[in-house]
Amino acid sequence: MNILDGRKISNQIKEEIAVEVAQMKERGEKVPHLAAVLVGNDGASLTYVGSKVRSCKKIGFESTLIHLPEETTEVDLLRQVEDLNANPDIDGYIVQLPLPKHIDEEKVLMAVHPDKDVDGFHPTNFGKMALGMETFIPATPFGIMELLRRYDIETEGKHTVVIGRSNIVGRPISVLMSQKGKAANATVTVTHSRTKDLTEFTQKADIIVSALGSPDFLKADMVKEGVVIIDVGITRVPDETREKGYYLTGDVDFDQVAPKASYITPVPGGVGPMTIAMLLKNTLLARERHS
Amino acid sequence: MNILDGRKISNQIKEEIAVEVAQMKERGEKVPHLAAVLVGNDGASLTYVGSKVRSCKKIGFESTLIHLPEETTEVDLLRQVEDLNANPDIDGYIVQLPLPKHIDEEKVLMAVHPDKDVDGFHPTNFGKMALGMETFIPATPFGIMELLRRYDIETEGKHTVVIGRSNIVGRPISVLMSQKGKAANATVTVTHSRTKDLTEFTQKADIIVSALGSPDFLKADMVKEGVVIIDVGITRVPDETREKGYYLTGDVDFDQVAPKASYITPVPGGVGPMTIAMLLKNTLLARERHS
Repeated sequence: MNILDGRKISNQIKEEIAVEVAQMKERGEKVPHLAAVLVGNDGASLTYVGSKVRSCKKIGFESTLIHLPEETTEVDLLRQVEDLNANPDIDGYIVQLPLPKHIDEEKVLMAVHPDKDVDGFHPTNFGKMALGMETFIPATPFGIMELLRRYDIETEGKHTVVIGRSNIVGRPISVLMSQKGKAANATVTVTHSRTKDLTEFTQKADIIVSALGSPDFLKADMVKEGVVIIDVGITRVPDETREKGYYLTGDVDFDQVAPKASYITPVPGGVGPMTIAMLLKNTLLARERHS
Repeated sequence: MNILDGRKISNQIKEEIAVEVAQMKERGEKVPHLAAVLVGNDGASLTYVGSKVRSCKKIGFESTLIHLPEETTEVDLLRQVEDLNANPDIDGYIVQLPLPKHIDEEKVLMAVHPDKDVDGFHPTNFGKMALGMETFIPATPFGIMELLRRYDIETEGKHTVVIGRSNIVGRPISVLMSQKGKAANATVTVTHSRTKDLTEFTQKADIIVSALGSPDFLKADMVKEGVVIIDVGITRVPDETREKGYYLTGDVDFDQVAPKASYITPVPGGVGPMTIAMLLKNTLLARERHS
């Protein structure tokens, strides 16, 4: 069993980006500038956004956090988005989800200019990805692809079972892994809440990408010997004995499944850190494309 | 064994559209107007475009055929596309593929305004489809979905194996059938040229959508009893005994497979006629959205 060490690889990627940024500075060029818009005070969102901003600083990016109150109107948020679209100093930005219920998320994501949409959530970028064109790939699936590539995992012709069909993970990773290219060319099955006999699929899978959000769901008897496991699920399980009052766990019962797996991502320290690294990578790409 | 009669259903759909168009006329409204751009004199393309234009006339649409010479430059074609984008009389248009080799297809498809892209090939529309938003769905997968709906084929939780991952058929149908909704919610496996043991997948499939373009490829021993077969392949096989010098056949060895199938589309007369009907449907939707 080998660990797919997302923390290690994400640090490598960040170091690579930091080197490029240092070279940009030396050449007197503008460095990448990422902005993040956060509406309200959701605990997890605050953590994610904070982490993104800190990562920017570490690798030499400029960053701007626009923290708006919970009661911000849709009109005001859309105006903010327009400002970011028009601001030549901002290379890319994200609008942290979820947004408060009184704001139409789809409307906001549609308003982000595709050239600055480093989350890759805008339909134009999503469509380009699905059609195999150059674009911003959403950070989580991009991170999974990069992890597979850096560990040189054979995917061609391998049966990959994706659990979950969300727009953020399940859908894009299923498209990417079944396309032509490196870490791709897999035979991909998309499973979801309506799938009958999920175990029949997972038991035959060479690679499983689980993006379900159901703690310790995948057990040893559901997978075959030698399987590659990518665990995207990340759930906070309440635990009073911990300082934070919770611990993080994935979709996979790690202790059970790891001994059968050839490669497996831990939670935390697997896909999570890769997501931030690829957001930074997209911001670097945005800077390069704008210049 | 039941035939999924694409000819019959497509005629029903065209009649329904014709009724709507007649009502539009009665109300003194503008009727839908479809334009088709054809570059060069490819035999199959001439046939397809001709058939689309004739269908428009039959159901009361206005139609315009813009037939440009083979040697048309990319710049001139792009200018033509811009004219169509700007022309308020045109509700939707298609650029018939393939284009001559000296023209960059991607560049041309990107230039079509998404609101007039009734083929649904523009990344913005493709992305909206993949994200489950309202858009123009490419005509062939749209036709398959409509055929499944009108015959009330159960797809929820059914294992659907899609053969082929093209941007025009395999990719969009695999996305659509695995989404939420009617004729959807299936567990979908995308197979392609790099898939190992395709037969292992097809033998277990409840539904097979074949978009390979390899005549009589799918044999009886590759499918299970009761399978639903959607044959998207359409190949001209040379045959001197026929008046046209060829006959049309699908990916499926119909005589062998049909007795095992619960439902099957014939070729010709299955998915083909549905494609034209859904292009007309998209043009009607374009008119309604623009008004």
